Amino acid sequence: MQSSDADWRALPLSALGEFALIARLTRDLETRPDVVLSAGDDAALLDPGASSDTLLVATCDAQVEGRHFLRDIATPEEIGHKALAVNLSDIAAMGAEPLWALVSLMLPPELDVDVLDGVYAGMRALARRYDVAIVGGNVAATAGPLTLDVTLLGRVARNYALTRGGGRPGDALLVTGALGAAAAGLLAFVPPAMASARVSPDILALVRRALVAPEPRVAEGRALAAVDVVTALLDVSDGLVADLGHLCDASGVGAVVKADLVPIAPETVAVCSASGRDALELALAGGEDYELLCAVRPEGIERALDAVRAVGGVASPIGYLTDATRGISLQKRDGTTLPLPRAGWDHLRTALRSPDSDAGAG
Amino acid sequence: MQSSDADWRALPLSALGEFALIARLTRDLETRPDVVLSAGDDAALLDPGASSDTLLVATCDAQVEGRHFLRDIATPEEIGHKALAVNLSDIAAMGAEPLWALVSLMLPPELDVDVLDGVYAGMRALARRYDVAIVGGNVAATAGPLTLDVTLLGRVARNYALTRGGGRPGDALLVTGALGAAAAGLLAFVPPAMASARVSPDILALVRRALVAPEPRVAEGRALAAVDVVTALLDVSDGLVADLGHLCDASGVGAVVKADLVPIAPETVAVCSASGRDALELALAGGEDYELLCAVRPEGIERALDAVRAVGGVASPIGYLTDATRGISLQKRDGTTLPLPRAGWDHLRTALRSPDSDAGAG
Repeated sequence: MQSSDADWRALPLSALGEFALIARLTRDLETRPDVVLSAGDDAALLDPGASSDTLLVATCDAQVEGRHFLRDIATPEEIGHKALAVNLSDIAAMGAEPLWALVSLMLPPELDVDVLDGVYAGMRALARRYDVAIVGGNVAATAGPLTLDVTLLGRVARNYALTRGGGRPGDALLVTGALGAAAAGLLAFVPPAMASARVSPDILALVRRALVAPEPRVAEGRALAAVDVVTALLDVSDGLVADLGHLCDASGVGAVVKADLVPIAPETVAVCSASGRDALELALAGGEDYELLCAVRPEGIERALDAVRAVGGVASPIGYLTDATRGISLQKRDGTTLPLPRAGWDHLRTALRSPDSDAGAG
Repeated sequence: MQSSDADWRALPLSALGEFALIARLTRDLETRPDVVLSAGDDAALLDPGASSDTLLVATCDAQVEGRHFLRDIATPEEIGHKALAVNLSDIAAMGAEPLWALVSLMLPPELDVDVLDGVYAGMRALARRYDVAIVGGNVAATAGPLTLDVTLLGRVARNYALTRGGGRPGDALLVTGALGAAAAGLLAFVPPAMASARVSPDILALVRRALVAPEPRVAEGRALAAVDVVTALLDVSDGLVADLGHLCDASGVGAVVKADLVPIAPETVAVCSASGRDALELALAGGEDYELLCAVRPEGIERALDAVRAVGGVASPIGYLTDATRGISLQKRDGTTLPLPRAGWDHLRTALRSPDSDAGAG
């Protein structure tokens, strides 16, 4: 690998891209016998020892002003909410119970104290709802943008933990909630924000909320882990196709997504209509949905749907897994299929902007 | 508290300062029964459940370019080393064993890949030495400076864990290693860097290394936790006097530090001589030493010193704890004492610069 490495050396990170960089940084990482699952899934699984029947779950995710949030779109409370929510989503994606958070703040010294008070209020309100204790953190000054880096720890019964890697050909694909609303929020609120003038305030409020304050599917994740029919689970943060690609890579399978089964909220359709955009494209590639995507043994579909329903959630079958050789394809209503590019959200290449710019980047 | 809060609202964070901000953010934080020790010590202590006889230890600390490191002073490898070392120091300060790290990177997209390769190489080399597995992390782009935020998890036997809060009047104060060398490194290398022309290259290399690649006292911390005579422990990151203040606040005691017992390395003295600065002042208030400071029952001093010696370390008695009413004072060689201001390193008020600018700020 050394010779191909040399080709990268003069390159800036932006040319490498997020996923290639992560692969590079996590290649051949040292491990320990108590590391059950290391980098490469939504969270790590760690064995606390003493023949514990639960595993520790650990994840971290950062929100950077100008990249992940804009203060003229999100309130301080929403910024704090989202900083924790994205981590709750990763814990949910392991089927785990969130427990403890550490909050690391990179702060511009000129930031008003009341902004930070609001951020903390929003984060603490969400923490309370999930019985998460903020147990530590750090403050550092920065000459750069306001940045919140949250580490979230949780636990999961050893035999319940779900990864991206257990899917098999023939398994059904289920997704919670609806997709594309956060991407519609970008369309409506991030300049040039073409759609906002032509959409009702109620619609705008819904897609803005999806963008700035997503609701993590913690109860749904735990419910899916508790039924014995789910084979793989992850959250949809990079976009359905990109995250389905992660599931397929980890499971060694391909997938077919049925276009007319992909759940899209009415508000997403409304914003897309007003912008001349394809709502299905946003649902497939938009990113930041923070819904859960799982593979389910075919005979267990009803049990999985019931489990999500029992905690007040909603899930939809959207397709199935295939042999790896078939890749990932979209089956249109007329029965024809087309291969799906691995479009998605690349944090090193994209800032807050219209989400379609990434299409085909993968 | 609401009315006094209102007075802060128009203020920038820099006017509030790091310690007041942390106090504000951690006031009345929600907790859970499994949180043994929350924010306010070097790390949190968490109960993994199932009547485990070990506790989980969790801490995080960020390194921001321009604040905590400068690329014209530290190599990429040293930057990575330090990002993990400061967290290892916090784990050491609980008497704990480090296990698992999560690494969150905030990256300028124009950063060269080889810089990041070096950062990771330095971090991984240190991780290997302490058998720490990097189990996850995150990459995010930023318009600001390169920032590394590391979360480190460890474990400690429930009855070994040491906090800042157990010191009692009459206890001896011990510190590992020598103090002031990192501050001497700032004097020598951070502009105006008055001292560098008048000090030998060997001396410069030592204080530079102390500044950019501190050695965490992990073995010493575990050794101190394993003898049954240490009552309080923390690491010296903000400066001896500031961190002694944290120990005294948490333990409800005062302290006397004997000036002629404070260990100062020859290289620190050399840099101070060349700069016309007082080496004792740097040792008391310089910060970033990453040595350990502990309180020891008076009859246990030799056992504690032996325990540190047995792992290849060194520790020195530097004074003793008193009633809280006596505050913190310095006893000079002639027997007179003077009260010590709570000088130290405030991350919201100070950037990388001559460390004496904070003297008296507390």
